[in-house]
Amino acid sequence: VKLYTWKHAPNPRRVAIFLAEKGLEIPVEEVGEGAQLKPDFLAKSVHRRVPELELDDGTRIGEAMAICRYLEALHPNPRLFGDDPKHAALIEMWERWCEADGVFAVAEVFRNKLPAFAGRGLSGYTETTHQIPALVERGTLRVRAFFERLDRQLAGHKYVAGERFSVADITAVCATDFALRTKLQIPAECANVSRWHAELSARPSVAITR
Amino acid sequence: VKLYTWKHAPNPRRVAIFLAEKGLEIPVEEVGEGAQLKPDFLAKSVHRRVPELELDDGTRIGEAMAICRYLEALHPNPRLFGDDPKHAALIEMWERWCEADGVFAVAEVFRNKLPAFAGRGLSGYTETTHQIPALVERGTLRVRAFFERLDRQLAGHKYVAGERFSVADITAVCATDFALRTKLQIPAECANVSRWHAELSARPSVAITR
Repeated sequence: VKLYTWKHAPNPRRVAIFLAEKGLEIPVEEVGEGAQLKPDFLAKSVHRRVPELELDDGTRIGEAMAICRYLEALHPNPRLFGDDPKHAALIEMWERWCEADGVFAVAEVFRNKLPAFAGRGLSGYTETTHQIPALVERGTLRVRAFFERLDRQLAGHKYVAGERFSVADITAVCATDFALRTKLQIPAECANVSRWHAELSARPSVAITR
Repeated sequence: VKLYTWKHAPNPRRVAIFLAEKGLEIPVEEVGEGAQLKPDFLAKSVHRRVPELELDDGTRIGEAMAICRYLEALHPNPRLFGDDPKHAALIEMWERWCEADGVFAVAEVFRNKLPAFAGRGLSGYTETTHQIPALVERGTLRVRAFFERLDRQLAGHKYVAGERFSVADITAVCATDFALRTKLQIPAECANVSRWHAELSARPSVAITR
């Protein structure tokens, strides 16, 4: 197998943290160049996005969580997608929420604000997608709402989906660090998020992928 | 268990089709009222969205695919999430892509265009999210790109993730019918999408949930 990645981007980092938690090493190819993906990667990619995993038979798997779940099936321990149907469902619910309302919300600010992404307000498209200034404002509101809801959840739980570390934490910490890098703050009143973020930041998998 | 749903919305329909494919019947409560979710549902909901599944111990599971995967664990046949790691990964990749680039793209048009959603440009938020007219245009472009890419995939495969019906088809057909209801068309040149959509529309699970 080979993992196509871009070390500065939040979605490849989800897989990088997952691999570190599993203690797995696989061949990796960096396909970012400046603020673009390299043309020879784009020509072969399924969805013009990273991360993408190429299997030995040539099959290409995109989407961070599809890649992680594939690797979990081959290397089950430690289990990061849960070990019974209810716990697995809670992990998947929170993981998907952290992607849609966390990573995507920060991306709304990042992609519509940075001059380097002019004409590329969305990732993965060949079409020109103009930056929309109103999305910087909406995204900022969404990121605040993300932290406030995450804070309520973390008031009652050590980790995002309960008492054990899971892929929901991986996506949440990538969303959080992506927000901080985009100059968005964890609101001062979200003490539970700050506590969780400090704990997560001390994990080797999170620290070495920063 | 009890499923909270809103029969006119695309995400609850993903679960409704899944249940019909499995031949499962579970108690359902409609919580839509006009173009809003009922206040007593919102007060108890995890993420202020439907579908949501309440387990007998009171646990609430949101996100259509988290609910479906939970039900698949309890009722494995027919397998709609795949039966080996590679096939499961392809299904998850396509399912997530159909959600993010299909359902979410149509929602961008729907939510930012319809007067009934003024101030609620996004689902699930307590904050006011103003409609952004530029998203009607961007969403329309995204939906066209969705159909064009889906067409290339369906040129070589009977179903979205390969030769067998899966949850990727469920999300794709919900995105497609949501697009049609939003007055967006399947582009005339996307003959493979039209062929697949006609076949899917004849399936009882799809027909009875229209």
